[in-house]
Amino acid sequence: MPAHPPARPSARLVWTRYGKAQTRLLRVTRQGQRHEITDLNVSVALEGDFQAAYEAGDNSGVLPTDSQKNAVWALANQGVGEIEDFALRLARHFSAAHPSIARVRVTVEEYRWERIDVEGEPHPHAFRRPGGEIRRAEASCEEGREWVVSGIDGLTVLKSSGSEFQGFLHDRYTTLEDAFDRILATDVRARWLHAAGPADWTSSFGAVRRALLETFATFYSHSLQETLFAMGRAILDGVPGIDEVRLKMPNRHHFEVDLAAFGEQNEGLFFPADRPYGMIEGAVERPGTSPSRAVRPAWIWEEA
Amino acid sequence: MPAHPPARPSARLVWTRYGKAQTRLLRVTRQGQRHEITDLNVSVALEGDFQAAYEAGDNSGVLPTDSQKNAVWALANQGVGEIEDFALRLARHFSAAHPSIARVRVTVEEYRWERIDVEGEPHPHAFRRPGGEIRRAEASCEEGREWVVSGIDGLTVLKSSGSEFQGFLHDRYTTLEDAFDRILATDVRARWLHAAGPADWTSSFGAVRRALLETFATFYSHSLQETLFAMGRAILDGVPGIDEVRLKMPNRHHFEVDLAAFGEQNEGLFFPADRPYGMIEGAVERPGTSPSRAVRPAWIWEEA
Amino acid sequence: MPAHPPARPSARLVWTRYGKAQTRLLRVTRQGQRHEITDLNVSVALEGDFQAAYEAGDNSGVLPTDSQKNAVWALANQGVGEIEDFALRLARHFSAAHPSIARVRVTVEEYRWERIDVEGEPHPHAFRRPGGEIRRAEASCEEGREWVVSGIDGLTVLKSSGSEFQGFLHDRYTTLEDAFDRILATDVRARWLHAAGPADWTSSFGAVRRALLETFATFYSHSLQETLFAMGRAILDGVPGIDEVRLKMPNRHHFEVDLAAFGEQNEGLFFPADRPYGMIEGAVERPGTSPSRAVRPAWIWEEA
Amino acid sequence: MPAHPPARPSARLVWTRYGKAQTRLLRVTRQGQRHEITDLNVSVALEGDFQAAYEAGDNSGVLPTDSQKNAVWALANQGVGEIEDFALRLARHFSAAHPSIARVRVTVEEYRWERIDVEGEPHPHAFRRPGGEIRRAEASCEEGREWVVSGIDGLTVLKSSGSEFQGFLHDRYTTLEDAFDRILATDVRARWLHAAGPADWTSSFGAVRRALLETFATFYSHSLQETLFAMGRAILDGVPGIDEVRLKMPNRHHFEVDLAAFGEQNEGLFFPADRPYGMIEGAVERPGTSPSRAVRPAWIWEEA
Repeated sequence: MPAHPPARPSARLVWTRYGKAQTRLLRVTRQGQRHEITDLNVSVALEGDFQAAYEAGDNSGVLPTDSQKNAVWALANQGVGEIEDFALRLARHFSAAHPSIARVRVTVEEYRWERIDVEGEPHPHAFRRPGGEIRRAEASCEEGREWVVSGIDGLTVLKSSGSEFQGFLHDRYTTLEDAFDRILATDVRARWLHAAGPADWTSSFGAVRRALLETFATFYSHSLQETLFAMGRAILDGVPGIDEVRLKMPNRHHFEVDLAAFGEQNEGLFFPADRPYGMIEGAVERPGTSPSRAVRPAWIWEEA
Repeated sequence: MPAHPPARPSARLVWTRYGKAQTRLLRVTRQGQRHEITDLNVSVALEGDFQAAYEAGDNSGVLPTDSQKNAVWALANQGVGEIEDFALRLARHFSAAHPSIARVRVTVEEYRWERIDVEGEPHPHAFRRPGGEIRRAEASCEEGREWVVSGIDGLTVLKSSGSEFQGFLHDRYTTLEDAFDRILATDVRARWLHAAGPADWTSSFGAVRRALLETFATFYSHSLQETLFAMGRAILDGVPGIDEVRLKMPNRHHFEVDLAAFGEQNEGLFFPADRPYGMIEGAVERPGTSPSRAVRPAWIWEEA
Repeated sequence: MPAHPPARPSARLVWTRYGKAQTRLLRVTRQGQRHEITDLNVSVALEGDFQAAYEAGDNSGVLPTDSQKNAVWALANQGVGEIEDFALRLARHFSAAHPSIARVRVTVEEYRWERIDVEGEPHPHAFRRPGGEIRRAEASCEEGREWVVSGIDGLTVLKSSGSEFQGFLHDRYTTLEDAFDRILATDVRARWLHAAGPADWTSSFGAVRRALLETFATFYSHSLQETLFAMGRAILDGVPGIDEVRLKMPNRHHFEVDLAAFGEQNEGLFFPADRPYGMIEGAVERPGTSPSRAVRPAWIWEEA
Repeated sequence: MPAHPPARPSARLVWTRYGKAQTRLLRVTRQGQRHEITDLNVSVALEGDFQAAYEAGDNSGVLPTDSQKNAVWALANQGVGEIEDFALRLARHFSAAHPSIARVRVTVEEYRWERIDVEGEPHPHAFRRPGGEIRRAEASCEEGREWVVSGIDGLTVLKSSGSEFQGFLHDRYTTLEDAFDRILATDVRARWLHAAGPADWTSSFGAVRRALLETFATFYSHSLQETLFAMGRAILDGVPGIDEVRLKMPNRHHFEVDLAAFGEQNEGLFFPADRPYGMIEGAVERPGTSPSRAVRPAWIWEEA
């Protein structure tokens, strides 16, 4: 083994994490002619005592990410069920795998497929993937405690009325004019922490999604900030068993096109701009949430 | 004006094309409380006698791409209607713009939005963009002739049964084994040339999309090649007014996962691979199609 | 075998193509301590008599795309050399593979790696990938004839002076003002057809790349169109053995920012816009090019 | 103003952040014929007392993201300098903008351009963008304190020798075999917290980049984890003024291709896989770092 210097006092390892990202799988469940499919993207992240590996090249406490991929596949082979449950099973599996592993986070993205209609009837084994929004589940384990965070990415919405933005702060660089009837559009990224599990995850997800959509649609908006809070509140109001909601919503600006130069009046024409864009974020909590839940390993937006 | 050398005999300009690509627009049509929205991405490509511009820096025959963008916006402001008609109006507009312009192609991508349901009722002005597939129209004009090619991109489909691949050619590098029941998955890219216009484009599009989906679902597949031909044929069979169909379908491989190493039997677990992938293409024509249509400026897959 | 209907007279198969796209490989050549690496992305496209497969599900003339991937790997294992030669070897291999294969196109993208400098010396086996531009080669075979098209993608360039755009055509939608000193920026995509092979491909590539860069830099530009022609002409002027050049260059607009509202004068501040953008294309040919070369299977921009 | 319900006790706003993301700019500095260009992507994120906006639609404390964009442009117009300094100036500007703003983070990405060589001489105003790696600076202000985090993204490296992975933990899903001479490849994402500013940022950046590259190249690797720690330690060892380093390095797997089925021996052929991939992370600190710096608003990986 080639020599390498030991960790010198100049540097102290203060945090480590590693795992297998983006293990893809399709699980087919066959009941005679009728098939169900589950299409997932699974990422595993482990934290713990990996000092010997990082500092001294000693891999005896390192479960290879290849083995993690195999475990994801093996457990999926035994049946997936709801993605929150699957993420939890995986997180518990890795927590129990070795004493060196102190904290586990498993993220599952689910790509939705719908049955293809043939002469009005859903086909038993042919599917179409609608694209767009992605359902997510994140399960974390640490010292016997567990957290489940459900989520949705890419829920793209737009309202062509019921939105204004005025009365804002002016500084020397402010040139924006008050808007009394503007287009409001965003791609909702939402995460919500469950108070306890297991739950009827799919019903809960559907209720959250409905709350997001209905609130966006019906809430008269003075700003995307206000709409964001209203959406988070609607989840806490309408869906039991949720402690906290985090939302991240880019403001997809639609600027009115100036057609005066051609002698025309704008009849409802907007330019959807790519960049720059506003990014609006917020977290909303159910009051009285147990402070013991304040340490939440799962509140991380980033992708593996 | 700084001197620059004239075109020397070493180089002959044999083809030119230019235009504005990806002009985005959202057109809102308001009928009282109820709004309709149309979300488009429009690209313009002009061919013609632009030799003076390319060879001598003489811009007197060059309609700026900025003016093209303005024209797209101005015509959209007057009302969009169906995208095939809008593409045609734009193509005719540019054809008539200047004698230097000999051939025009206008491509319109439409991003679909659905109304958000609120308490079971579609909302009058709030929308959700489902993502995924994109409807397209391409109109071309040249010397008084016109072509309309409709299309769809990103129609992602999968069947978990009803597909085999066997009896294929073997060479010294063949290791693939016969598959008697495999997963078949693809992202359909389709283009179809209309025999004549105008038509009820939306009905026609719906019928083509249905033919693609239903054929993919029900046709027993011996290869993606055979499925592709069956899908093209189903369009010509089922949708009047279409002369030719072109299809481009990547084979999104799903490999069975080998779990024997863990002592488990595969219960229906597949690995969706990213790369490499098969790419299957084909063109299907209605017999007796007038040879005069053989020159089709529109048969180009590429994006601007 | 389940029944499926024979091709009915409603549909005639007029064109087919299939092959394996994006086979990735890294080839390491070791000479003692010193290693060379070649990082490629290879796509194969076959045309020929595949009617029985498309129309009747008869795969006996279909070389699986999986076998194509294996062949790419096997031939790479024997040594890559220059990518034009490698593409040619692959194209000839597939041409000879089976009588059903009438035309072959092999595309090779090469990702450049540079040695990491350690204390001023290039390291024998550690590399850095600079990103950005990609070198390409495309070889086609058909009925004993061969074509080699070299290329470059993603050569991003910008000049902050030496560019104007004025004297252009005005129509009713023209609002653009004459620019007498503007920023000119583009991502050059170039393809060039070799008159004959084999050549010293790397020298030739270097000379073309130099001609593109030096001409972009030094040629006073009245339009991106004129610059494009000058760049194509410079290749034909400066690099022997090339018959034709095709260029595709998006106009990456940089708009001067209006700071008057804050009482400031623009000191050289520009906004690089994403969309829309102009797309400028052209083909330049060496006069006297043999007409027999006019049929060029390789002149296709699209990616597999 | 339309009525909307006040925040009910069901929901408590616990965190807010908003700002303008991805304001692009190109700043040209002209010294006669010779130009310098700076190409930036700037994101602003503000935290503070925005409760009235989120909860009650009261925008009087909301500085529009449009004004933030204008401020970015206005300050860039006055001269950019080094991106760390520019980020700091912007962060201080927003901190001072309004009492409601308690914490500011400004992120600056810089796209590198090199001069085009013309006959061996660097051109005064024509540039090529090499692509690939991106230099970053992040400045944060909070209650009079300031943090500067420099960074690099997309530093892609590979070594074809000097890397093994063996002696790892085995569980029931482990099938990976020991590797005694494997390819090691990654895309380095690095962030480092400066102990104090201002510094000679460009020298510091160069020294960090060199430490990353040289350590990757020369350090004999028992795992990517160990290499990561060695790279972090090399920065703390070699570059003064840095308190902490965070690294995020995907393991870009290169699998040896099995050619035995064709009767060939692998001569150095690898398959670079896309997904899944290992993700290795770690943080390394200089011992004795003042605990007061432990609260670091800047330690966030995510992009705006």
